Amino acid sequence: MTTDSAINLRNQLAKFSEHWSPRVVAEMNDYQFKLAKLRGEFVWHAHEDTDEVFIVVEGEMTLEFRDRSVQLAAGEMYVVPRGVEHRPVAARECCVMLVEPRGTVNTGDAGGAYTAPNDVWV
Amino acid sequence: MTTDSAINLRNQLAKFSEHWSPRVVAEMNDYQFKLAKLRGEFVWHAHEDTDEVFIVVEGEMTLEFRDRSVQLAAGEMYVVPRGVEHRPVAARECCVMLVEPRGTVNTGDAGGAYTAPNDVWV
Repeated sequence: MTTDSAINLRNQLAKFSEHWSPRVVAEMNDYQFKLAKLRGEFVWHAHEDTDEVFIVVEGEMTLEFRDRSVQLAAGEMYVVPRGVEHRPVAARECCVMLVEPRGTVNTGDAGGAYTAPNDVWV
Repeated sequence: MTTDSAINLRNQLAKFSEHWSPRVVAEMNDYQFKLAKLRGEFVWHAHEDTDEVFIVVEGEMTLEFRDRSVQLAAGEMYVVPRGVEHRPVAARECCVMLVEPRGTVNTGDAGGAYTAPNDVWV
């Protein structure tokens, strides 16, 4: 999808309120940029076939790994390597942009109740 | 390259001052995230093989196309479709993050004096 105007991330974030429910805002080749609102503790999971990028737009979050954790605040990003188990956690609502290949499922190999519909545009 | 801490975009931007000289800050699969400082008018060019994402971190810029232009401010992004001629312009310094496949040259098919060394990390 191409548009004639810039994609304003805060304006797009204002269009939905559900947590752990990524919304696509842009596509680049076979990759998607997705906005998501996080609050609480997600499920442990890994993406076997791809790295996954987190860019924090608003708030703070933690990426927990089995052996460490990484703190992220607005204006910070992190690349979760493929195959590495991780769990996003946010004490208060945190808004992020994810970058990953089209078709990447939010719960990766874990499945379960947090699995969101894929390819939903904001 | 993986790190144990978040990548702070403003901190990384403080590490260089050259305009039109993208610096890699992260890799995801075969894609790179690059920070760049823009000021003035770049050359018209296209990337025949890939879309290119602009995310504005600080300041304002314009993406000129042959038939229109798109204004971008901090917190906004745009996807330049593959093969489409464009020219980034910034009246004052503007800091952006680019997302594109590893190996993408900043001047695309145009070449010339603005062509920056590729794959230079910040």
